[in-house]
Amino acid sequence: MIMIKNGLVVTQDKRRRVIEGNVLIDGDAIDEVGGATDKSDIVIDAKNGIVMPGLINMHTHVGMTELRGMVDCSSLERFLEQTTAFDSKNTEGKIRRSARLAAEEMISTGTTSFLDLYYSEDVIADEMSRKGMRSFLSWAVLDKEYTTQKGEPIRNAESFVKRYRNKKMTTPSFGLQGVYVCSKETIEQTNRLAKQYETVVHMHLSETRKEVEGHKKKYSQRPIEWMGRNRFLSRRLVAAHCVWANPKEIGLLARSGTTVVNNSISNARLNSGSANVRDMIKKRINVTLGTDSTASNDSLDMFQTMKFSALMNGLPAQHVLDAATVNAARALGSEIGSIERGKKADIIILNDDAAMRPTTRDNAVSNIVFAAQGGNVDTTIINGRVIKR
Amino acid sequence: MIMIKNGLVVTQDKRRRVIEGNVLIDGDAIDEVGGATDKSDIVIDAKNGIVMPGLINMHTHVGMTELRGMVDCSSLERFLEQTTAFDSKNTEGKIRRSARLAAEEMISTGTTSFLDLYYSEDVIADEMSRKGMRSFLSWAVLDKEYTTQKGEPIRNAESFVKRYRNKKMTTPSFGLQGVYVCSKETIEQTNRLAKQYETVVHMHLSETRKEVEGHKKKYSQRPIEWMGRNRFLSRRLVAAHCVWANPKEIGLLARSGTTVVNNSISNARLNSGSANVRDMIKKRINVTLGTDSTASNDSLDMFQTMKFSALMNGLPAQHVLDAATVNAARALGSEIGSIERGKKADIIILNDDAAMRPTTRDNAVSNIVFAAQGGNVDTTIINGRVIKR
Repeated sequence: MIMIKNGLVVTQDKRRRVIEGNVLIDGDAIDEVGGATDKSDIVIDAKNGIVMPGLINMHTHVGMTELRGMVDCSSLERFLEQTTAFDSKNTEGKIRRSARLAAEEMISTGTTSFLDLYYSEDVIADEMSRKGMRSFLSWAVLDKEYTTQKGEPIRNAESFVKRYRNKKMTTPSFGLQGVYVCSKETIEQTNRLAKQYETVVHMHLSETRKEVEGHKKKYSQRPIEWMGRNRFLSRRLVAAHCVWANPKEIGLLARSGTTVVNNSISNARLNSGSANVRDMIKKRINVTLGTDSTASNDSLDMFQTMKFSALMNGLPAQHVLDAATVNAARALGSEIGSIERGKKADIIILNDDAAMRPTTRDNAVSNIVFAAQGGNVDTTIINGRVIKR
Repeated sequence: MIMIKNGLVVTQDKRRRVIEGNVLIDGDAIDEVGGATDKSDIVIDAKNGIVMPGLINMHTHVGMTELRGMVDCSSLERFLEQTTAFDSKNTEGKIRRSARLAAEEMISTGTTSFLDLYYSEDVIADEMSRKGMRSFLSWAVLDKEYTTQKGEPIRNAESFVKRYRNKKMTTPSFGLQGVYVCSKETIEQTNRLAKQYETVVHMHLSETRKEVEGHKKKYSQRPIEWMGRNRFLSRRLVAAHCVWANPKEIGLLARSGTTVVNNSISNARLNSGSANVRDMIKKRINVTLGTDSTASNDSLDMFQTMKFSALMNGLPAQHVLDAATVNAARALGSEIGSIERGKKADIIILNDDAAMRPTTRDNAVSNIVFAAQGGNVDTTIINGRVIKR
């Protein structure tokens, strides 16, 4: 048993309580919150820091991490040309190295789990479990004529999901690159398989104006509108970006229960525009946050992403912290995202450095979103294991 | 003598060279850059990290640091009500504590000097020199009827400038709170004194739409326009914000040689709007960067400010790094801002953590702006003294 004491616990429980008290971890789960008893073998002194749920990065491509600062970010189209060229010469060795780098950065900056979209997710899964990360991995499906993958993407994805679906720290799922390289049939097949294997479908959607214009030319409908008419929007879908969702499409996303991932830094970096996150939250869409890959961010630090999303959209700190924790957990159907009895023990501790002072119960959530940065993460615990201390 | 070796040196010299080589410090100044000789007493191993000029924060109020996360940021007007209430009950002891906290945060996140605007700058000066910071401190002048200062602000400012103008690590100057609390006469007198004592004039200017509307009602002119007509714009002036500068006013700022401080995070946090930094740079205005105080940011980390300004304005990394180093040094008339023979040794070293990898000569400047955060600062040297290691 591990006992964390002397911290201010930002629980993210239903009442969003911030309490002074201990957190007791038994095996991979949280056993008690706020109690005073000390029946633990290991005691971690939080030293007046904040104890909080590990952050959940809902959209990234960890296999591209070594592209940090390397490609032209003037537009998504220019960016895709260069990254596709990179992918065509990619090797498992390079993906492994990138994944390892990403794991180190995430653990060090307080991200305890993430939803990835890429190929060779089996390689990524292995590297991540070696590092102790909790991974949600979507194998990217796209039409055969566009892919750099060996073999047929949808078969690769299915075989990955089959092989990894009973692993403890890895949850496999199906991905879709986007409507610009996925036919209606491809999306239909992918959805059918996702239903069969009970996984999420993770895709890029309505990221750029060009995507919208291209889709309108081809189908006379906007991407999200078209997804809705084809019954592709659902509780199962995790849609990254949605920068160009118009009010009608925001309505469709809301009614279908689709989860949206806001990637504010990447969208700004690639000049894609800025998603209307305020209206999405107003319409009760399950909004979550992602960094996107380091090629377009160039950081996997979710604290930075929380602050940028808050500032870009004028959001209250509590909404932003919810997006990075409990909302993400809801989309993933996983017992993470809050510090409550029975939840998996994915917990981080922030230090009490000058940049975090003063912190009180009143400003703790504000300080998490606006003052903290990855560098303030002192301790990272994933599934009850202390990974960074 | 101190020798920094094994680093990638981002010099910020006239040719913006990025070189592999040593940096030799003799006393308070840089003696040699790129040389191979080793005649030093102390050797600092940069361990493949980036060696770069310390960052210069061109607009902050360090005496308010303890207000982090404490006030309502819904608008500048609401914010000023609360902070003025705070100021009226403020004490030298509190200002001292806030200054100390700010010094710790700046040193730890790679800021080696800053331009402040507040009262009790004598207290701040003492606290900062104790910590080893290089300080540029502007005593805020405003009309007597608005001030919370004891005595007459302009007399306080003059006496502060007189008393501190020959200190090594402190450069005193005159400040102006803003046109909404400074009459034409107050600004005139302040300008005259600044000329006499050869200091900058540091002021808030055109921060909110309300400031512009209020000024138009009173003077039938916009603030910057009015400043121009009264010959208050000059090479001496450091104008913070300028969010509401229209194209004509951008022209006035450019022709007068006024330095502008972009405070993108604070402006977003207070819903003030976003300055047109791209056009300012296009018109060759000397653009610099500031965090503003922790009450409206809530961080003094200049790396975060660089990234946010770059993303908000679509700026190339080199322009942003210039704003935070050489442009600031030019405004302050100080021998800092670059790593060149003869310059004062204000130098920071970034570590080689996962978040910074890969770094090469080609992407070093991009990684400084988009990948690095204060937490990556390994070593801080100010005026040849190793303050953090």
